[in-house]
Amino acid sequence: MRRIITISREFGSGGKEVGKRLADALKLPFYDSKIIHMLAKETGLQESYISEISEHGSYPYAFNFGRTFMALPTLQMNQNEILIAQQKVLKKIAEKGDCIIVGRGADIVLEEYAPVKIFVYADMDAKIKRCLAKKPSEEQLTLTEMKKKIKTVDDGRRRFHDILSNRTWGEKENYDLCINTTNLAIKQLIEPLAQYIENYYQGK
Amino acid sequence: MRRIITISREFGSGGKEVGKRLADALKLPFYDSKIIHMLAKETGLQESYISEISEHGSYPYAFNFGRTFMALPTLQMNQNEILIAQQKVLKKIAEKGDCIIVGRGADIVLEEYAPVKIFVYADMDAKIKRCLAKKPSEEQLTLTEMKKKIKTVDDGRRRFHDILSNRTWGEKENYDLCINTTNLAIKQLIEPLAQYIENYYQGK
Repeated sequence: MRRIITISREFGSGGKEVGKRLADALKLPFYDSKIIHMLAKETGLQESYISEISEHGSYPYAFNFGRTFMALPTLQMNQNEILIAQQKVLKKIAEKGDCIIVGRGADIVLEEYAPVKIFVYADMDAKIKRCLAKKPSEEQLTLTEMKKKIKTVDDGRRRFHDILSNRTWGEKENYDLCINTTNLAIKQLIEPLAQYIENYYQGK
Repeated sequence: MRRIITISREFGSGGKEVGKRLADALKLPFYDSKIIHMLAKETGLQESYISEISEHGSYPYAFNFGRTFMALPTLQMNQNEILIAQQKVLKKIAEKGDCIIVGRGADIVLEEYAPVKIFVYADMDAKIKRCLAKKPSEEQLTLTEMKKKIKTVDDGRRRFHDILSNRTWGEKENYDLCINTTNLAIKQLIEPLAQYIENYYQGK
């Protein structure tokens, strides 16, 4: 049986790190922002633009054109078309073989592959702490601004999920396992999580 | 650091089995209905009566007196007093040493011990199937009746939780780990879960 593991996560909860480390432990291909790169190649659009649409389901009001030349009709490409292109990319990835995918609504889009659906979350204080520890030195956000950023990103993820499904983003009923990273280090999670995945597929 | 593991669970999700098997794997004392027995001894009340109050926070309308003699003043013992007695019993258990406790609001009552809080849940169909497989042969419930029973029991647990805390029963934010038992056998869960507990306490 094909092993597709999807990881949904709250911003700052360490979900990406969970996915990356789990992929290393299980020796599985790992897809995160790599998907944006694949999508940019497929559609000819700029990665930052696709990133906003494909993860958050919204058209960015402030859009940095950068130095990429894009014709207007391409720029106006319908949001739905990008989402459809992303679904194609996700299915291509799943068709290739076993993998771990973080975000991008993969838990919904790849439902036919019966993925193991994991949700990673944490208390707000823990998320703020993690974000502040990771933020690039030029980014000088206050605690309040960081909290606002976390909420804004997660609102976007919720909104994006709502476009794809009538199931609520982050509601435990929609996942196989929900992991709170507030009280333990991500690396402590990987061994039991890898074992969980092994056992999950045993005999399937 | 004292290892207190609390397991909250939806009726029919297999939470008790998770607790029992995990206790065997980690060689920890396991407390479930044993608490009712301890409470009956402490208060002099009938176990079935205590069970209703202590787990569901409600006075049972249809109460079977059985063959136990009870004086009316004892019977009218305030619900809060029973809850307080239960809290004492839970704290006595925690004081004795490491343990796993299923239900009884132990996640709330024993908060000062910083327990690992686990919530076990499953899809309704899976819970009905599990309940029907386990039900005594004399209990002839239809699917609809079983579904109703599951909802009623969980409503009681939610109500009981509401008496103890303003946090919502079953909301993932209130637990360290939420495990959906719909798609895999309980026994497949135990090895990774025991590993998770070991890692959780590593270095604490």
